[in-house]
Amino acid sequence: MKGLPNMGNMEISRPLPLKQIDIDDDFWSGYIQLVRNVVVPYQWEALNDRIDGAAPSHAIRNFKIAAGLEQGEFYGMVFQDSDVAKWLEAVSYLLETGQDPELERVADEIIDIIANAQQIDGYLNTYFTLKEPAGKWSNLAECHELYCAGHMIEAAVAYYHATGKRKILDVACRLADCIDTVFGPEAGKIQGYDGHQEIELALVKLYHVTGDGKYLILSQFFLDERGKEPNFYELEYIRRGQTKHFPMLDMVFDRSYSQSHLPVRSQESAEGHAVRIVYMCSGMADVAAETGDKALLNACRVLWNNIVSKRMYITGAIGSMAHGESFSLDYDLPSDTAYAETCASIGLIFFAQRMLQIEAKSEYADVMEQALYNTVISSISKDGRHFFYVNPLEVWPEASDKNKGFSHVKPERQGWFGCACCPPNIARFLASLGRYIYSLKDRTIYTHLYIGSLMKFDIDGSEIILKQCSNFPWDGKVSFEVSLDKETEFTLALRIPGWSGGAEIHVNGTRIAWEDDVIDGYVYIPRTWQPGDTIELHFPMTVSWMKGHPLVRETIGKVALQRGPIVYCLEEADNGANLHHIVLKQLTSQCDSFDENLLGGVLTITASAHRVQTESWGAQLYKANELTTTEAVNVTFIPYFSWANRGRGEMTVWVRTESI
Amino acid sequence: MKGLPNMGNMEISRPLPLKQIDIDDDFWSGYIQLVRNVVVPYQWEALNDRIDGAAPSHAIRNFKIAAGLEQGEFYGMVFQDSDVAKWLEAVSYLLETGQDPELERVADEIIDIIANAQQIDGYLNTYFTLKEPAGKWSNLAECHELYCAGHMIEAAVAYYHATGKRKILDVACRLADCIDTVFGPEAGKIQGYDGHQEIELALVKLYHVTGDGKYLILSQFFLDERGKEPNFYELEYIRRGQTKHFPMLDMVFDRSYSQSHLPVRSQESAEGHAVRIVYMCSGMADVAAETGDKALLNACRVLWNNIVSKRMYITGAIGSMAHGESFSLDYDLPSDTAYAETCASIGLIFFAQRMLQIEAKSEYADVMEQALYNTVISSISKDGRHFFYVNPLEVWPEASDKNKGFSHVKPERQGWFGCACCPPNIARFLASLGRYIYSLKDRTIYTHLYIGSLMKFDIDGSEIILKQCSNFPWDGKVSFEVSLDKETEFTLALRIPGWSGGAEIHVNGTRIAWEDDVIDGYVYIPRTWQPGDTIELHFPMTVSWMKGHPLVRETIGKVALQRGPIVYCLEEADNGANLHHIVLKQLTSQCDSFDENLLGGVLTITASAHRVQTESWGAQLYKANELTTTEAVNVTFIPYFSWANRGRGEMTVWVRTESI
Repeated sequence: MKGLPNMGNMEISRPLPLKQIDIDDDFWSGYIQLVRNVVVPYQWEALNDRIDGAAPSHAIRNFKIAAGLEQGEFYGMVFQDSDVAKWLEAVSYLLETGQDPELERVADEIIDIIANAQQIDGYLNTYFTLKEPAGKWSNLAECHELYCAGHMIEAAVAYYHATGKRKILDVACRLADCIDTVFGPEAGKIQGYDGHQEIELALVKLYHVTGDGKYLILSQFFLDERGKEPNFYELEYIRRGQTKHFPMLDMVFDRSYSQSHLPVRSQESAEGHAVRIVYMCSGMADVAAETGDKALLNACRVLWNNIVSKRMYITGAIGSMAHGESFSLDYDLPSDTAYAETCASIGLIFFAQRMLQIEAKSEYADVMEQALYNTVISSISKDGRHFFYVNPLEVWPEASDKNKGFSHVKPERQGWFGCACCPPNIARFLASLGRYIYSLKDRTIYTHLYIGSLMKFDIDGSEIILKQCSNFPWDGKVSFEVSLDKETEFTLALRIPGWSGGAEIHVNGTRIAWEDDVIDGYVYIPRTWQPGDTIELHFPMTVSWMKGHPLVRETIGKVALQRGPIVYCLEEADNGANLHHIVLKQLTSQCDSFDENLLGGVLTITASAHRVQTESWGAQLYKANELTTTEAVNVTFIPYFSWANRGRGEMTVWVRTESI
Repeated sequence: MKGLPNMGNMEISRPLPLKQIDIDDDFWSGYIQLVRNVVVPYQWEALNDRIDGAAPSHAIRNFKIAAGLEQGEFYGMVFQDSDVAKWLEAVSYLLETGQDPELERVADEIIDIIANAQQIDGYLNTYFTLKEPAGKWSNLAECHELYCAGHMIEAAVAYYHATGKRKILDVACRLADCIDTVFGPEAGKIQGYDGHQEIELALVKLYHVTGDGKYLILSQFFLDERGKEPNFYELEYIRRGQTKHFPMLDMVFDRSYSQSHLPVRSQESAEGHAVRIVYMCSGMADVAAETGDKALLNACRVLWNNIVSKRMYITGAIGSMAHGESFSLDYDLPSDTAYAETCASIGLIFFAQRMLQIEAKSEYADVMEQALYNTVISSISKDGRHFFYVNPLEVWPEASDKNKGFSHVKPERQGWFGCACCPPNIARFLASLGRYIYSLKDRTIYTHLYIGSLMKFDIDGSEIILKQCSNFPWDGKVSFEVSLDKETEFTLALRIPGWSGGAEIHVNGTRIAWEDDVIDGYVYIPRTWQPGDTIELHFPMTVSWMKGHPLVRETIGKVALQRGPIVYCLEEADNGANLHHIVLKQLTSQCDSFDENLLGGVLTITASAHRVQTESWGAQLYKANELTTTEAVNVTFIPYFSWANRGRGEMTVWVRTESI
């Protein structure tokens, strides 16, 4: 491909098309139905400003005005368009996994509006079209033009896959072509990149669906341009007369905020805005996979390792600092002021999935699972209408009310947000969950997640159906049944979750010794499969007392309970206020039990603890040589994802223990 | 007095004039000499912009320009004048306690300049005179006009006491008279009050020195006007066309920030900017003392109790929240993000001293001592040229560098500040330290602080000299020697510090039983004193393991070591990094020893501890069921006030223990 050196073959596994996977799972089907029946319709209402009491969106009206269908002015954030794109992407995944003519009609209508809002040269962005037509491409640092374009491209690719309709894909290609005429290494083009990464991974999707290599080349250009000297943001800042879109923020000069402090290949730690860096890494992995660029892949590994070994919460959340929604420093993982944005965990899953395609190592899938079962599903309420943008690991509601250092930490999920990136991101992610379960490389089918589903794939032109039944996350029993017309040779690669410490595996009822067939956390079972073959897996799912690395100040002297992929927490509703008074007994025998009437059905854990007594203390604030008095209590842990569904109250993931 | 009901007599004790007290103390004389020889000269250079590398002040030039002596424009904060006033106040105290003709000449010169900067109607404020002459008295919420006036009045009263020269006192009277023509309950005057309390206590000082009751009435007016409905800030905001001086801040509408959310008599918790509320409470106590207003006094007690029993650090620091330099909520006392402004602790001492005058209860003096020996002297470096504005109880320097939630927390004292309220406040406070040792009521002389000194006072016209020798803070031995011409009957009231749990007292070598003569923490020794009478006190000074109230989340499971009035801390210089790895052994026998070569001579405490090992952990961020490995170590505590004198490093006051 012209301009893009092929640096050697990099064989990667690919997710199966969503239409080949039908999730049927006690735990997950409910979420996907919630997205279909509530979240997507609710968000459509929100995008149309028809939710009483929610922050206004105006996103659909912006498109209608830009399309000349209505009169009015642009309203909202500079990246408001992306909410519509993410919604359309979620709709696409729903349509790919189930017919819904009415939803498709609504989508076609908004696609028509979007197409009408596109300008003759392919440009598409309602903020600049309506509000600042002379300012196009003049403020990449702050104004998210390429970010919005990236989301529109992702939506277009998804809609095309779902429906086969080209209209929005053509819009996306014209938009990408427009971008290609504006950006690039050639004289007269802009040598720049967007403040918020997203276009990079989107262009690779467009390359996949169109086969047009220029999109891949453009993606690589954006990645490699970032961090060059002199800094592009400062050049464009001077060019546009030193104006700022967000004068309160420092997007122009705080280079690490958008990872422009160094070339992406030289970055050794995850700095700045968390969503941006994981979207960037996803694009880097995409380009590395396509071009065989091992140096770029290695840069991905370096950043991955920094994130997961020094800067990630046990819930799979990242970006601990509210200021700039960003990473701070190694081992700085405060529970109570955590930012831990939902979108950042979704982005981390994007990054993990891409790394997993390049190298099938269970550490990537483990993190994917960790973020999925904890932060991602914690961020949405059981009713599908309330969301967490910020996902703290400890909450003291009164402090959220009165201490401004905690004002980003909400004790309850919110209806909508002025900056509403997270809710539609949750929707599009959950609607496409099927894409994260399996991937295929040659004759090997990888199972990354244990989610009940029916999946079809092809080997040598013959269709194979893999039916997975899973009791996750409450029980480690999983079974597969293979349906095929004729016996076929292929390899089933099954992930051994890091938390399980192993598994029992039976093939057709016979226990197999698999320990020698594990590579990087995946058991490879090569076999000539017969119709009706079955595999049964049993992963031990016991309660673990998790500790944080001793360099993490926040978790020293504390434990978090985890069982299978689920991280647990204490909530005030079960344990009263002042959760810091609870100290787990060291060798407590905790017991777990499934409570089908609690929070939609969750497994709770009960443990013995001391509870510090306050009453005997009196009014003094400090006392000399005072003995702490305690009483023995039982405390109840609930899954972290299910917190904040019973009113305001305290919550904590990390709990003090007797041990040091 | 017209307008000011006398609500009954309130007999109060009064501090002795500074010229009657000569501090001669191993511990304190060095500080006072530092103020005289270094701090005040250094600050004079700073105010004149002659310190390389320090933030510019421009404060003297502002006065010169306003006086017509130089050309130029105002520069600095809207309250820049107050730095000059506080410096002049410090100079006054130095002149009152020791002649210094050159310093007095410099002071007279700046007084001439200040007098020339005063306008014909008595108005004096260089910001408004130079920069916004049409805006006088239009933005009390934000612009500190009365605050600056208050500081000028305090300086003037102090200078008059020191030198007997009236020039600056006359300036102050004209300024106060001008204010009196502008503010008051009468039609045509402004019914308002300053955003930053200070004028209230200053006017009472002016009343004391002039005997003119209108200043007291004006002070009471400002106090009682605060918090009335409709809110004055909002009225003036509308009147001036809805402009803001600090558009980033919310001084106009965040009423509790400046304690205007309720009438001062109805406020039950310490809210908002910490310095403002303690200055306000000082003014409230002053007015209550003069008028006998018991309701106002009770309001002081309510706020005092809330502060000291729910919102004060063990170091006597207050105002835990960086946002708004303010109080947050009960028991919210984070160590690492503490704001704990130096000026707020000084203001707390002002408040304590006034309460102590009204009611001699050792709890007030205990807090005064706690703030003095810990926060106040921690805020100034041994070289007298570097200062802490913020006084954290725990520091992780890398977090201060990289996590914006900690950016206010400096691991090292700074040379000067753009907002330079604290350094001159420290100077004026330390220069007047003598005023806090004793107070006199009728025939009772109260000793509040144990500081070596020679003090003269009068009973029935005969001069008595009390010579105090003190080994504080390293040893609890104190002695007094009484010199008088003829035997005189008076009562010596001696404070029993809360931390001591008691004392041994000898009068002329004979141990006395005093336990029945204690009222509110003071031992009363009535006696007909003879020349040469001696009193010897011995307060047990042992190391206490201090605990915080169990509702303080930050201190649970931790202790702070205190010995006498001194709170201790661990520093990286003695104990290596990662102080959170240190866990004190429960029944450790710590030993203390005086190290005269360390930090100018301090008593250190050594204790046995476990130290968590990191090396064996490996690269994983979280591990299941991992046992923590530790090694036995001895750790060394140094006085909190002496931290950060050996380069950047970690520090913590609260240390983990084995016990719950």
